[in-house]
Amino acid sequence: MKVRVYVMLKTGVLDPQGEAVRHALGALGFDGVESVRQGKVIEMELADGTPEARISEMCEKLLANTVIESYRIETY
Amino acid sequence: MKVRVYVMLKTGVLDPQGEAVRHALGALGFDGVESVRQGKVIEMELADGTPEARISEMCEKLLANTVIESYRIETY
Repeated sequence: MKVRVYVMLKTGVLDPQGEAVRHALGALGFDGVESVRQGKVIEMELADGTPEARISEMCEKLLANTVIESYRIETY
Repeated sequence: MKVRVYVMLKTGVLDPQGEAVRHALGALGFDGVESVRQGKVIEMELADGTPEARISEMCEKLLANTVIESYRIETY
């Protein structure tokens, strides 16, 4: 089974990488970019039938730093 | 308008970061993880009515390195 995990910084947590992208877009002449936040996608190929609870465990233990990041799991 | 851009390494391009995650998951006792690829998500708040062509241009010029990365645009 294929799983996608999205890891984003929580709202309120400063995102310097996203800020840098916003500035760079402005410098390149792209106007109207109000905000940019950058996160990670992790695409995994897992054994069929891996329960969602197990995937959440992977996120909690390794993929996301839940103090400052939130994650979303998507099966596709 | 809100836009999400997904940037992933193209198939065939070595992904050491993904490999590291796969190894780490194995070491933590998560079995059955066959492959892991890691990419970026960029969430942007753009001026309403920004045409998709303009967003593609942002990707080609800054957000993705199209030699080794592919991107996907999603409006939400």
